[in-house]
Amino acid sequence: MRETELIRSLRAVRQFSDREIPNEILFDILDTGRWTGSSKNTQPWDLIVVRNRETLAALATCGQFAGHLAGAKLAIALVMRGDDAWSCMDEGRLMQNLMLAAWAHGVGSCIGSIYPADNERRAGALLGIPSNLFLRTVLSIGYPASPQALRLPANAPVPKGRRPLEEVVGWERFRERQG
Amino acid sequence: MRETELIRSLRAVRQFSDREIPNEILFDILDTGRWTGSSKNTQPWDLIVVRNRETLAALATCGQFAGHLAGAKLAIALVMRGDDAWSCMDEGRLMQNLMLAAWAHGVGSCIGSIYPADNERRAGALLGIPSNLFLRTVLSIGYPASPQALRLPANAPVPKGRRPLEEVVGWERFRERQG
Repeated sequence: MRETELIRSLRAVRQFSDREIPNEILFDILDTGRWTGSSKNTQPWDLIVVRNRETLAALATCGQFAGHLAGAKLAIALVMRGDDAWSCMDEGRLMQNLMLAAWAHGVGSCIGSIYPADNERRAGALLGIPSNLFLRTVLSIGYPASPQALRLPANAPVPKGRRPLEEVVGWERFRERQG
Repeated sequence: MRETELIRSLRAVRQFSDREIPNEILFDILDTGRWTGSSKNTQPWDLIVVRNRETLAALATCGQFAGHLAGAKLAIALVMRGDDAWSCMDEGRLMQNLMLAAWAHGVGSCIGSIYPADNERRAGALLGIPSNLFLRTVLSIGYPASPQALRLPANAPVPKGRRPLEEVVGWERFRERQG
């Protein structure tokens, strides 16, 4: 339905153009992240905006799937207070809000995972993050390089599309089909 | 900005009206959840729609902050394949998409946490969930009972509002202010 088209259409973008992100759009993305709901409204996060190209290139080496950070116009690091299930769930909600806010402005994004632990320490040192906090994800941000940047390459190492709704949804009980 | 108003305005709703959720809206909420991005597109989730009032009342007793489930028009249980950081982050992204999709239709929602472990076992048995899967959250869904249902009560046990943007965002480094 039209009301949810923006949310449903969100896809990861891994290739970015050089086009500047206007400041008012960057602030709107950050502000939409700031308003994310969290467990007991603890807002257990800090954000770091990274535009320095050397820092972006270094962050791109801090995870097996973080390479796209080197080509991002800027990145947003999600610094979290905890590493329990609720903290990680709050991180996911914050991430989704940031990605959707960017998408609402035609701006693409892709999650870069920072791991294992020695990479997290290295990235944390680069960004001056206290050692009692957690850096698991850095979000690449930029306008898509081209319409092709919105599609997975044919040889992508992950499955495309989504499982059908009838498989995903059970009614009243797990995987119970509708009568 | 106007483009992100829907996302920024999302608030938890804990009191629901009796008004039916039209089927096409329920399916749109579920479908928007289905399209959520996940780590390597693993889609590590199943959803269960619960409308049975006895089941809703029983689920409401399965967590300290799950009481609102008893008054929900229906609930969506998020059944996850894992309990590591990435699974919980994917759960958060899925949750946010479901909540935003409902909100886009004027439908409210609130997260109910299922814990500790004995409550998770009890809720899992109610819903027929295999013991190798995880049920941490069930989402209450319904039209808001009244405009007041959109506001936290004055004696709410959680802080209201959000930390200011200048406090949340650092520039290039953790908590570094803009020059």
